[in-house]
Amino acid sequence: MNDSLKVGSNIGILGGGQLGRMLSVAAARLGFRCHIYEPSPNPPAADVAHCVTCASYEDRQALAAFAQAVDVITYEFENIPTTALDTLEKLRPIRPGREALRISQDRIIEKDFLNNLGLKTAPYAAVDTLEKLKTAIETVGVPAILKTRRFGYDGKGQAQLTKPEDAKKAFEAMQGQASVLEKLIQFSHEVSVVGARTSNGDVACFDPGENIHRDGILHTTTVPARLTTSQRTDAVLFTAKIMNKLDYIGVIGVELFVTSEGLIVNEIAPRVHNSGHWTQNGCVVDQFEQHIRAVAGWLLGDGTRHSDVVMENLIGTDVTKATELARTKNVAIHLYGKEKITAGRKMGHFNRIIS
Amino acid sequence: MNDSLKVGSNIGILGGGQLGRMLSVAAARLGFRCHIYEPSPNPPAADVAHCVTCASYEDRQALAAFAQAVDVITYEFENIPTTALDTLEKLRPIRPGREALRISQDRIIEKDFLNNLGLKTAPYAAVDTLEKLKTAIETVGVPAILKTRRFGYDGKGQAQLTKPEDAKKAFEAMQGQASVLEKLIQFSHEVSVVGARTSNGDVACFDPGENIHRDGILHTTTVPARLTTSQRTDAVLFTAKIMNKLDYIGVIGVELFVTSEGLIVNEIAPRVHNSGHWTQNGCVVDQFEQHIRAVAGWLLGDGTRHSDVVMENLIGTDVTKATELARTKNVAIHLYGKEKITAGRKMGHFNRIIS
Repeated sequence: MNDSLKVGSNIGILGGGQLGRMLSVAAARLGFRCHIYEPSPNPPAADVAHCVTCASYEDRQALAAFAQAVDVITYEFENIPTTALDTLEKLRPIRPGREALRISQDRIIEKDFLNNLGLKTAPYAAVDTLEKLKTAIETVGVPAILKTRRFGYDGKGQAQLTKPEDAKKAFEAMQGQASVLEKLIQFSHEVSVVGARTSNGDVACFDPGENIHRDGILHTTTVPARLTTSQRTDAVLFTAKIMNKLDYIGVIGVELFVTSEGLIVNEIAPRVHNSGHWTQNGCVVDQFEQHIRAVAGWLLGDGTRHSDVVMENLIGTDVTKATELARTKNVAIHLYGKEKITAGRKMGHFNRIIS
Repeated sequence: MNDSLKVGSNIGILGGGQLGRMLSVAAARLGFRCHIYEPSPNPPAADVAHCVTCASYEDRQALAAFAQAVDVITYEFENIPTTALDTLEKLRPIRPGREALRISQDRIIEKDFLNNLGLKTAPYAAVDTLEKLKTAIETVGVPAILKTRRFGYDGKGQAQLTKPEDAKKAFEAMQGQASVLEKLIQFSHEVSVVGARTSNGDVACFDPGENIHRDGILHTTTVPARLTTSQRTDAVLFTAKIMNKLDYIGVIGVELFVTSEGLIVNEIAPRVHNSGHWTQNGCVVDQFEQHIRAVAGWLLGDGTRHSDVVMENLIGTDVTKATELARTKNVAIHLYGKEKITAGRKMGHFNRIIS
């Protein structure tokens, strides 16, 4: 697909959560229709999509019908089963491509990839037995964090080790899943870069945001982030390097720790990113539209930051603040239409324009 | 309905064009689902709506089922048949209310209403026979414009008279429909105010925009408009006066001519307005969200203008410029997903941020 998609073309999105929802709105703004593929009934994206297929990722018939109904396929999350991707890829282009998914689905492969690119990560070692964990503790050191290699998000599938004796408890917490031990490194703060790349190699990055987490979940992103000029340049160059190596098409999120020894890459996400939600009210073209533009073969838009913004997530019962926030000056509310409030569930976010 | 709508509530929208489309997106942002009612198949709003009923305004069963499926009803156009409103109103609240529709559906009733409020309009007279037109020409004067009393938009159903002898031709152009003769007044430019009012009487108006038309269709809206401080105050006060008198709930568009004798009201539209599209990129809360907030019983948001903007409509083949515009700095594109390009059809618009 070298040509850009025409108005009225259909974009398939794997996953119907809030990211798929906001992608669908951005696609509509450019005249495209979105078809959501999501196993759970009534997903948030269904409220603003042209079409929804509710089927599992094991349902090859549904996957094939979905692929045939669209012109290009993208996704809102990286943990799509490989078998589903195999079925889809035969029928329509998947953007970003398989290589980005293969790398970001496994923490070891991802860290190897980053180090091979010359980027720094925290010291790490693969773990699949208690013995290997004990050896890893010796090479990596403590304090450290043990994480499942696959399917972790928002702090799930993680266990901290402050001393070598924590090994057994941490290993058991992995419930037999292949894991990675990562050294807990000293950093002053976390930043992230949301970047975009087109099929012809054009790259544009939004201003880095500074992230604060609570209970393992992103709480706020503030732009501009506290970074020196050279750190800012590094952050953007690292992101471009990653995208170029992957021949990437779409938006990527790159999380970085700011340390006394430079920037260390925490992780990458081959999709629009929670830390890029501020762009909805801080830029003329936001991360969702930038992703759709790249996926659709359009040129990237103007992602220059026109305002300073603090994005804050509404997690669980935080969403009850929405009414109060609605009357606050300089606040833009973005709710996801989720009726059931549960602890830790992302219900919405708001962007506060600072200047 | 005194309480505000809860997240997940359903808002019914009569009309599935681009205004319904952008209302649906704004509603989703606040966690609401939209149900579109539209006689034409595949309307633009369907791409971003939770649900669509494709049925005529004469279909009482479909109207009743639609009303029962939603919590409140609003609309994107004022020419909804009275019989349909009668059916709907028995089942669910319609916002803005019937009085606003009754007045804006008929140019004579509208002008009488405005003059009774103490606002100025162009001199006018009702016309239903050629004899009456001739009398009207004597009282109103020429140059003048003959318009159908009902169902006119974008310059349709209008005929100009430069001299009394044009009467017959102009009368025939009305094809027997009841009409109004309006004197063509001298004005330096046209401005419009997009205002909003809630059920508890809170009023907020966006900054007035300055409008330029081509071939009877809005071409550009520029904010800020060229207005003196007192003209600006008058424009907003007139709009508030109109909304208060109507006990209005929602967003209204008020078009005004700037003349040496002050502001003259051209017409009012009880809905979101093309001249308010600039708010999507010029304000934290845009006209579509402001309308949904009012209709849903929420408080109004912060509609302060943070940027100067020029909105330009993409009419007919103008839309082919979209790709070129996509690469332009400070330009935000909004396409309506219409595949068929026809002359005079509104295909999209773009907002150029000036500062």
